[in-house]
Amino acid sequence: MPRCAGWRRCVTACRRGQDCRGTGTQILLPMLAALRPPGIARILGPTYAEHARAAALAGHETREVETLDALTPATLATVVNPDNPTGRVLDARTLGVLAAAQRAAGGLLVVDEAFHDATPEWLTAIPLVPGGAVVVLRSFGKFHGLAGVRLGFAVAADAVAEHLEALLGPWAVAGPALLAGLAAFADEPWAQGQRVHLRQSAARLDRVLAHGGLRVLGGTPLFRLVQAPPGTHARLGRAGILVREFPHWPDRLRIGLPADEAGFARRAGALA
Amino acid sequence: MPRCAGWRRCVTACRRGQDCRGTGTQILLPMLAALRPPGIARILGPTYAEHARAAALAGHETREVETLDALTPATLATVVNPDNPTGRVLDARTLGVLAAAQRAAGGLLVVDEAFHDATPEWLTAIPLVPGGAVVVLRSFGKFHGLAGVRLGFAVAADAVAEHLEALLGPWAVAGPALLAGLAAFADEPWAQGQRVHLRQSAARLDRVLAHGGLRVLGGTPLFRLVQAPPGTHARLGRAGILVREFPHWPDRLRIGLPADEAGFARRAGALA
Repeated sequence: MPRCAGWRRCVTACRRGQDCRGTGTQILLPMLAALRPPGIARILGPTYAEHARAAALAGHETREVETLDALTPATLATVVNPDNPTGRVLDARTLGVLAAAQRAAGGLLVVDEAFHDATPEWLTAIPLVPGGAVVVLRSFGKFHGLAGVRLGFAVAADAVAEHLEALLGPWAVAGPALLAGLAAFADEPWAQGQRVHLRQSAARLDRVLAHGGLRVLGGTPLFRLVQAPPGTHARLGRAGILVREFPHWPDRLRIGLPADEAGFARRAGALA
Repeated sequence: MPRCAGWRRCVTACRRGQDCRGTGTQILLPMLAALRPPGIARILGPTYAEHARAAALAGHETREVETLDALTPATLATVVNPDNPTGRVLDARTLGVLAAAQRAAGGLLVVDEAFHDATPEWLTAIPLVPGGAVVVLRSFGKFHGLAGVRLGFAVAADAVAEHLEALLGPWAVAGPALLAGLAAFADEPWAQGQRVHLRQSAARLDRVLAHGGLRVLGGTPLFRLVQAPPGTHARLGRAGILVREFPHWPDRLRIGLPADEAGFARRAGALA
């Protein structure tokens, strides 16, 4: 199987129809979960809730676990790396151990790298794909700010990629999404500038949040996870700032980067 | 279940999240085929080949049949109405008999009405949906000339619609597709004018084809099925006119409407 060593090569390989296929990654989750007969699904949490929903839909006995030890062996083990919302990043050794455990168990390891593009220097599991039992998900819309076009990728072994492609059928990806994706991926200078801009904006947001009494616990350059006093969600909401709450984690909020100066000012005002 | 009596109401219901869900219909086919455990799938053919591919992918013993008698009972029975490429239209009594047979057999009847919008006066199976065991597919892109946006709909009973929605997940339909769909469906005067235009263009194309020695066997206003002497496909291809061949039906071609005057002239010239 041709390795997909980098994101740009992955896209090129995808266009050659070789080892990655794409539409929004969301729609791939139930397809990936159904690659194995119903068994045990474990998701390293807390994380994006759709992984658990998709695993349960495929008939797996599904549980979010809090430690790496509890994650494998499983029929389906899922990690989001870097994690949403915590920003937790797994190191190379950990990913290798997880992949080896899943291979030994006849299970599958799904590594969702939806937020990887903002920090490409962080680790990717794509080099583990040729060894088998590993599928890596990449998203187009988050870093490029075009979630609405619905474009995403699975990097997988040939047999898995062919199965996903058969399920997706011809014409899974909209023409406008393909055009947007090709144009965006061709513009590496924009990507490099955007990464600098995101880092600077995240650092600036952190100062606004700290000044407002919120403790920044983690995140990626695209969002920050904070510990917030009760009522913060409502206070931000009244100022027109939509942030993510967590039902079982009432003291935490995920806060996205403001789009512009007015957005920074509104956050600062709401937290004053 | 709220009935989906007409296309415009169907779209409205869809926006209310009630009884139809949408993305391109293509991606729905394997999901529909997997609604029943592997069994017998029959498709009234010759027709769009993706129905057979999706049924086989879901593990059904799959066969295209040539007669209505051979179609039911089956785990999954599929008709395309009006048919692509023949233009065959099933009458109300036939559709009712098929639905009743599938209900009695515990099977599913899929009615693909992808080409319905050009001829809304032709019969739709949507009124059969509330009786159970019937799913109707509608396509946005064909009539509106925007296949690339990937928008389509399944009209189904609540439980089936909810299952499809769970598999599709949130954000299955791209934002640009939703905007295009809403704008297009709001423009009924355009649709009425387009229907007249398509009919007139089809009648004009029929004259060109007959003049060129091709016998028009059927079709819809969007395409014509013709009996053609050997070599016609290559002759049209050399003139830049791409038409659909049928591997097991070598004397027939499906020919789409020309887009403009130059297209009519090119077809006439190639057949002269």
